[in-house]
Amino acid sequence: MVPELRVPHGADFASLTPLMPLFLSYVLSFVYVGIYWSNHHHLLHAAQRVSGGVLWANLNLLFWLSLFPFSTGWMGENHFAPLPSPVYGFVLLMAAIAYDLLQQCIIASEGPGSILKRAVGTDWKGKLSPFLYIVAIAASFWAHWMAQTIYVVVALMWLVPDRRIERVIGDAKP
Amino acid sequence: MVPELRVPHGADFASLTPLMPLFLSYVLSFVYVGIYWSNHHHLLHAAQRVSGGVLWANLNLLFWLSLFPFSTGWMGENHFAPLPSPVYGFVLLMAAIAYDLLQQCIIASEGPGSILKRAVGTDWKGKLSPFLYIVAIAASFWAHWMAQTIYVVVALMWLVPDRRIERVIGDAKP
Amino acid sequence: MVPELRVPHGADFASLTPLMPLFLSYVLSFVYVGIYWSNHHHLLHAAQRVSGGVLWANLNLLFWLSLFPFSTGWMGENHFAPLPSPVYGFVLLMAAIAYDLLQQCIIASEGPGSILKRAVGTDWKGKLSPFLYIVAIAASFWAHWMAQTIYVVVALMWLVPDRRIERVIGDAKP
Amino acid sequence: MVPELRVPHGADFASLTPLMPLFLSYVLSFVYVGIYWSNHHHLLHAAQRVSGGVLWANLNLLFWLSLFPFSTGWMGENHFAPLPSPVYGFVLLMAAIAYDLLQQCIIASEGPGSILKRAVGTDWKGKLSPFLYIVAIAASFWAHWMAQTIYVVVALMWLVPDRRIERVIGDAKP
Repeated sequence: MVPELRVPHGADFASLTPLMPLFLSYVLSFVYVGIYWSNHHHLLHAAQRVSGGVLWANLNLLFWLSLFPFSTGWMGENHFAPLPSPVYGFVLLMAAIAYDLLQQCIIASEGPGSILKRAVGTDWKGKLSPFLYIVAIAASFWAHWMAQTIYVVVALMWLVPDRRIERVIGDAKP
Repeated sequence: MVPELRVPHGADFASLTPLMPLFLSYVLSFVYVGIYWSNHHHLLHAAQRVSGGVLWANLNLLFWLSLFPFSTGWMGENHFAPLPSPVYGFVLLMAAIAYDLLQQCIIASEGPGSILKRAVGTDWKGKLSPFLYIVAIAASFWAHWMAQTIYVVVALMWLVPDRRIERVIGDAKP
Repeated sequence: MVPELRVPHGADFASLTPLMPLFLSYVLSFVYVGIYWSNHHHLLHAAQRVSGGVLWANLNLLFWLSLFPFSTGWMGENHFAPLPSPVYGFVLLMAAIAYDLLQQCIIASEGPGSILKRAVGTDWKGKLSPFLYIVAIAASFWAHWMAQTIYVVVALMWLVPDRRIERVIGDAKP
Repeated sequence: MVPELRVPHGADFASLTPLMPLFLSYVLSFVYVGIYWSNHHHLLHAAQRVSGGVLWANLNLLFWLSLFPFSTGWMGENHFAPLPSPVYGFVLLMAAIAYDLLQQCIIASEGPGSILKRAVGTDWKGKLSPFLYIVAIAASFWAHWMAQTIYVVVALMWLVPDRRIERVIGDAKP
């Protein structure tokens, strides 16, 4: 889910310098994959049963996450060029939508009185993130650093771990 | 089980265009792998015990699935050329036969009154798919788009999740 | 544990031909990895407790198995050249010794009355294989096809699944 | 977590020779990854519950371990050149600090009377290792073989498996 950091041919600092944008993109994507891994872990743990619909919503999420190495590598290797930055944001946007679909799918399969629904609550982060990604995609055509800044801000916003599900369900060891 | 999407050198739309056939093949194979992953998950969950024969039938299936990155990459990178398209279909055909063998192997190991046998029922999808793959392989020598169309149709046919096993067994969380 | 099959540049049969030795090596290694995976699965399932020594014996086995992609690729890409064939056999030999060490380590940790010891019995396959690998390595300097033949024969010898452990322990689903 | 050993083009001993530094680095990193895998396994097994903080401390450790292929490949492919050797040590240092943070995080989440705290004891290895890595990084600017020697010594120091946690908790099969 994270791109490979190819080994440079030289052995000095100068040969590391062109790798910096890829490394920064790598760190950013590693954090995003970590956020998804951690929340996805709690989400599936909360699901009482796995229906066919949930399996497909999960596969849809995995599809968009599987594009992270491509979009990260393309953005990093081209030093945040005009087109790769919004494409990176588009993959983030689709993954966020896919995560929300999966969450709704699990809640729907649990019927009324869903524990997950109570745990998720208003989910302001899940509602704000897609909006911020769209702003970032639009901004990237104006100044690419604005897009990168928004991607970092959203990641930091999620880095505060999602204690909601944990609080309601998570006393058991996963 | 899915080919790597190599990062193009350019950073504009023109450098993405030649990737489109590979990307479409990637999506198709991702769906196929997802179908196998989901059904395989239900299948092994239904198996009461894993005998040596089941392990080998499972390994045979994994072997053909392990060729997906090669056949997908070959078809996609050559823009659906005359030979790679039927080879892709051949790998799909062998995987379908291997899946059927695994299913029969598990049913046989369960003896009479097999829960899985009841769950699988007539398995018309499992019987129709190999036939359609053979049609696609034959058609690909005439017009490659016919083969691709059939591959997509079979995938869509399976996308309706296999609720049979789920209905009989699957109330428990896997 | 199995080498990557790189996609050839051409799209005709002629571009597949040079891949044949690599593909045959790939199939051979896939079978070997499958044999180890299946028996290793039964072996660890039989282990009552995992001591530090067992973990390291396991890591030693994983180390030699991790060299399979290299030795397979080197033998296949060089079309069974004089040096890569015995190197392939050497890695097989070391993996076989490592497997035997792991087995002894688990038996030792179980103390007298070890269930695994009874299940393994005389283990004539485990004793014969290293001897055959040494013969193959020696023969490869004379005629490489003799080495390949022995590798195939040993694989076929193991393909008959190891029902010993299964018989004594394996009624439970793993 | 371990770099890929690329297959050389030639088929003789001469084509293996330039691979030796990479192979030695591969073995060293394989041992380090094995040490982390084994101790990490015991550590998480000892953790009674996984809080959000623990998940992030775990992700931090995984991040530094994910840089092993890069740092190993860079050091090995450049035959222990002046810069890659201390960079390899820096990644080892950060992984050691991340492991210690994860351990403290789990102990803190267990509150007073933590079983893990008792199991870990004085943890002289965990305290000595970062110090030795810093010495190795400093020494590498003077003579690179001193750094490599220290990396090997620390690995050997850890190869004696960590029986502390095992002794207090580990009678159950993990």
